[in-house]
Amino acid sequence: MDTHVKTGGQPVKPHESNRARMLISCPDGPGIVAAVSRFLYEHGANIVQSDQYTMDPEGGMFFMRIEFDLDGLDGRIDALKSDFEAIASQFKMQWNIYQLSRKKKLAIFVSKEDHCLVELLWQWQAGDLDAEISMVVSNHPDMKEYVESFGIPYYHIPVTPDTKHEAEQKQLEIVGGKVDLIVLARYMQILSPALIEPYRNRLINIHHSFLPAFVGGKPYAQAYQRGVKIIGATAHYVTEELDGGPIIEQDVQRVSHRDDVSELKRIGRTIERVVLARAVKWHIEDRILVHQNKTVVFN
Amino acid sequence: MDTHVKTGGQPVKPHESNRARMLISCPDGPGIVAAVSRFLYEHGANIVQSDQYTMDPEGGMFFMRIEFDLDGLDGRIDALKSDFEAIASQFKMQWNIYQLSRKKKLAIFVSKEDHCLVELLWQWQAGDLDAEISMVVSNHPDMKEYVESFGIPYYHIPVTPDTKHEAEQKQLEIVGGKVDLIVLARYMQILSPALIEPYRNRLINIHHSFLPAFVGGKPYAQAYQRGVKIIGATAHYVTEELDGGPIIEQDVQRVSHRDDVSELKRIGRTIERVVLARAVKWHIEDRILVHQNKTVVFN
Amino acid sequence: MDTHVKTGGQPVKPHESNRARMLISCPDGPGIVAAVSRFLYEHGANIVQSDQYTMDPEGGMFFMRIEFDLDGLDGRIDALKSDFEAIASQFKMQWNIYQLSRKKKLAIFVSKEDHCLVELLWQWQAGDLDAEISMVVSNHPDMKEYVESFGIPYYHIPVTPDTKHEAEQKQLEIVGGKVDLIVLARYMQILSPALIEPYRNRLINIHHSFLPAFVGGKPYAQAYQRGVKIIGATAHYVTEELDGGPIIEQDVQRVSHRDDVSELKRIGRTIERVVLARAVKWHIEDRILVHQNKTVVFN
Amino acid sequence: MDTHVKTGGQPVKPHESNRARMLISCPDGPGIVAAVSRFLYEHGANIVQSDQYTMDPEGGMFFMRIEFDLDGLDGRIDALKSDFEAIASQFKMQWNIYQLSRKKKLAIFVSKEDHCLVELLWQWQAGDLDAEISMVVSNHPDMKEYVESFGIPYYHIPVTPDTKHEAEQKQLEIVGGKVDLIVLARYMQILSPALIEPYRNRLINIHHSFLPAFVGGKPYAQAYQRGVKIIGATAHYVTEELDGGPIIEQDVQRVSHRDDVSELKRIGRTIERVVLARAVKWHIEDRILVHQNKTVVFN
Repeated sequence: MDTHVKTGGQPVKPHESNRARMLISCPDGPGIVAAVSRFLYEHGANIVQSDQYTMDPEGGMFFMRIEFDLDGLDGRIDALKSDFEAIASQFKMQWNIYQLSRKKKLAIFVSKEDHCLVELLWQWQAGDLDAEISMVVSNHPDMKEYVESFGIPYYHIPVTPDTKHEAEQKQLEIVGGKVDLIVLARYMQILSPALIEPYRNRLINIHHSFLPAFVGGKPYAQAYQRGVKIIGATAHYVTEELDGGPIIEQDVQRVSHRDDVSELKRIGRTIERVVLARAVKWHIEDRILVHQNKTVVFN
Repeated sequence: MDTHVKTGGQPVKPHESNRARMLISCPDGPGIVAAVSRFLYEHGANIVQSDQYTMDPEGGMFFMRIEFDLDGLDGRIDALKSDFEAIASQFKMQWNIYQLSRKKKLAIFVSKEDHCLVELLWQWQAGDLDAEISMVVSNHPDMKEYVESFGIPYYHIPVTPDTKHEAEQKQLEIVGGKVDLIVLARYMQILSPALIEPYRNRLINIHHSFLPAFVGGKPYAQAYQRGVKIIGATAHYVTEELDGGPIIEQDVQRVSHRDDVSELKRIGRTIERVVLARAVKWHIEDRILVHQNKTVVFN
Repeated sequence: MDTHVKTGGQPVKPHESNRARMLISCPDGPGIVAAVSRFLYEHGANIVQSDQYTMDPEGGMFFMRIEFDLDGLDGRIDALKSDFEAIASQFKMQWNIYQLSRKKKLAIFVSKEDHCLVELLWQWQAGDLDAEISMVVSNHPDMKEYVESFGIPYYHIPVTPDTKHEAEQKQLEIVGGKVDLIVLARYMQILSPALIEPYRNRLINIHHSFLPAFVGGKPYAQAYQRGVKIIGATAHYVTEELDGGPIIEQDVQRVSHRDDVSELKRIGRTIERVVLARAVKWHIEDRILVHQNKTVVFN
Repeated sequence: MDTHVKTGGQPVKPHESNRARMLISCPDGPGIVAAVSRFLYEHGANIVQSDQYTMDPEGGMFFMRIEFDLDGLDGRIDALKSDFEAIASQFKMQWNIYQLSRKKKLAIFVSKEDHCLVELLWQWQAGDLDAEISMVVSNHPDMKEYVESFGIPYYHIPVTPDTKHEAEQKQLEIVGGKVDLIVLARYMQILSPALIEPYRNRLINIHHSFLPAFVGGKPYAQAYQRGVKIIGATAHYVTEELDGGPIIEQDVQRVSHRDDVSELKRIGRTIERVVLARAVKWHIEDRILVHQNKTVVFN
């Protein structure tokens, strides 16, 4: 079979086995950076990258992302986490540490349009998405052979108005607890809260407009109707409000009166691909913190 | 006084005195280009630029812009227009011919924020806006001295809820019939239909968002609230529907979580300036045709 | 086998069977547009799109692209061309007429990096590149299985310093006269004049820099070294001068000090893909005229 | 006189009087962030923003920018600096602390083209450039009245091949030691090393091309000649090598075959204005560190 197509994913690189990323959100206050950096230093960790943002110096929220190396990380991560509890509790932190050697597991949901899926698989195969793609789930059978040629399981779960509830139960069974991130790569069904809730801030959708313009269906037709001179796409975390979740990334391209709806769709496909792939990459690299309905992206 | 600041506007350049631009909209059909180009050729005109667009080959609208030179234009323009009537009527054309030597007259409306006005005056003075700026009208006195230093009359017409009707009567008197284009350069009052109607498709507003996102007031605050990753500005012709008129031009710039509302405003000012100036330039150069609620821009 | 992947290319759509495009270059003078449009009108053709550009009104070059419909085109094209000779000779035109039903034949040359090839095949399969891909030629065997899964012949012709001449002879034999356009999709060998000459203005290369910056090898390393804040890619027709041929399209993306050479390459891959695909699309759609070392692109 | 134009510059805002920025470059090693953040914490400072970048985790250079608040900063800054010496020396740091209440002093050099100067003055007056503009120096008298209307001294120092040396002596006398930053806002003379040396990394030039393309004179003519599809501008620190110094910022805009040299210049003016103003703003806000011939920009 096709060896070219099949070699997706990446082995853990030597320098990654001792690397981790720490994400912190907490109310701002004096001494946070000092406490965290001293903690890491005293535990023998070397900070290789650090980003920080305070929403408002006087009493706002503090966000931090630290990338560090620690020899023998695998054997020491549990103790490190347990030791950090004292600082976390002192500053009322929400926090997490992610090891680079523990690749995130992805499920990609797709319907009939393939461009976002093809892009994700191509970037993954090129080594640009440092994750495992555990499965592709679709309400159509069209992409089965293509996906399986990468060695990725493909679950065809048809969805009709009558079988929607049942279909979602199946989806939940298949992905439930087995993946870290669900990517809706032009999946044209609205998800129910039962699927959204357990994947809050871990469920990325690509909307084919420059949100909040053209919420809902047929955004390119809406854009054509309104005569906009620039079209865009938006990657966002899914919430119960349709197209209303925290925006991760947006991009745009110039169009003109010469572009009819089908041309807008063609141009849009390239924007959608690029925007979704960026958002997924940033999530995988632990660059996104969510606060209320907005994202802090350290990129 | 300051000769640097004062030298706005441009004299008619020699090669412009015999140049004109023709704009045509009509239902599409065979033979239009042939008829028009033959007409011009037989009248001794030389086409130096021509743009054409058909909305839909089978039964849609046809739009055309032709720039041509004709020796002795001034003396022959009336006969040319009169001779063209036969073709225009045959093809049911809406059409017009504009001589480059007849510079369009502009009125600029402004409130307190000066950046769009300053940009227009700077571009005008640099020779990039080939028009006459006949007057600046404002509901505030702040820019009077600055505007007058360019030799441009400044009309301060205060507007309060009580005096709004009366103020608009004054505005109508001042601009009425004397200008070809009104530019709302961050004029923060909603115009009444009495002013909009006579300047249909000749009244340009700059809205400080990427329409149709964030219609209405405080768009930067709305953009901050929604957490968008790109902000924009929109120049459009004013209609009775607030921020709903035909879009002429839009542009955008990338922002991040680090940008608070005042930073969005700062970034936005540069987008607004550039977008408004482009739209005004295109209108002055007869590059815009309006059909229903959309523009065809030949640029 | 994989029906998803295999369905590349597009059948001739009904409305295309009677459509053609005419490209004209000639010294400017009065009456050209009138003569051409009258000619088409009198032959029963309907102009659906027309673009024109004059380099300098007084004595420069005139360029025109006309898209027209003519009932029964297939049977009348020879007479049409023959009739047009009189006009062409009168105005000293270089000209051509291309029927949409005669799809251009492409050969794609590739080495080891696959992103440009994958993009072209994906766009072709999505129906965005209206051409036939006749073959892929490579100095490496890596992509053979992938390319053949689309039903496209793959020619592996190894090139070493010793066998370069012989390899080019083979390439010439394989493509010679059989394709209308050669696309170098990151083909990392310098072509000899024997291959360039017969494909003048029909041989497109993607260079991975914003030309004329970083001509030659390792442009991303050069860009990193120089510390530029924006990187780009350039699609151009190949001439005997290395990276010196007429530029068709360029695009760029912002980078920062955080991006090392490998990250520049990663970002660059997306620019290269998009820029090359645009240039190929424009060539296929007869939108490009070359004059001296520059292109006129009607898009 | 014109109060509108004259109100340039900004008073120190209350929250700025206790704020400072620290810039650090040193060889990377463990414990730097911990040492610096602990130092600040123990001195009662609150970090409101911090950025860090390591060129290469294993043995590269470390760059840091910290913005912090410290009550009573004015009275404590000397002690703070003196106390920091121990840490600085331990880690072999190049470092500096800048108080926001000590506004940087600028000299702007300009020739005949005014767009960059006008932009800087407009942004300064709008409060976007938080600095003092101490003087404008020009080899032409043209902008004298305009500049003086802002209350800024204008020095007209003509430069001819014969008087170049003498003119530079005068320039050095005027600016020498009195300003923190020299901005060449389209100053069309090449500076001698005598002026460059004392202002190393404090002398910003705007070059009207996308460097390293089109080094030297007449870049727009070169760009037109080469037929590029995108033009740009580059702000860089001046070194002895013409247009070869560390690049601070670049931006671009799309052009087409329709744009002749004068149109390229017109489009370019807007890019130049924006790029130069950004670079100056970042320098003023202490966001730029220079290492070898490249910049690290924390923005």
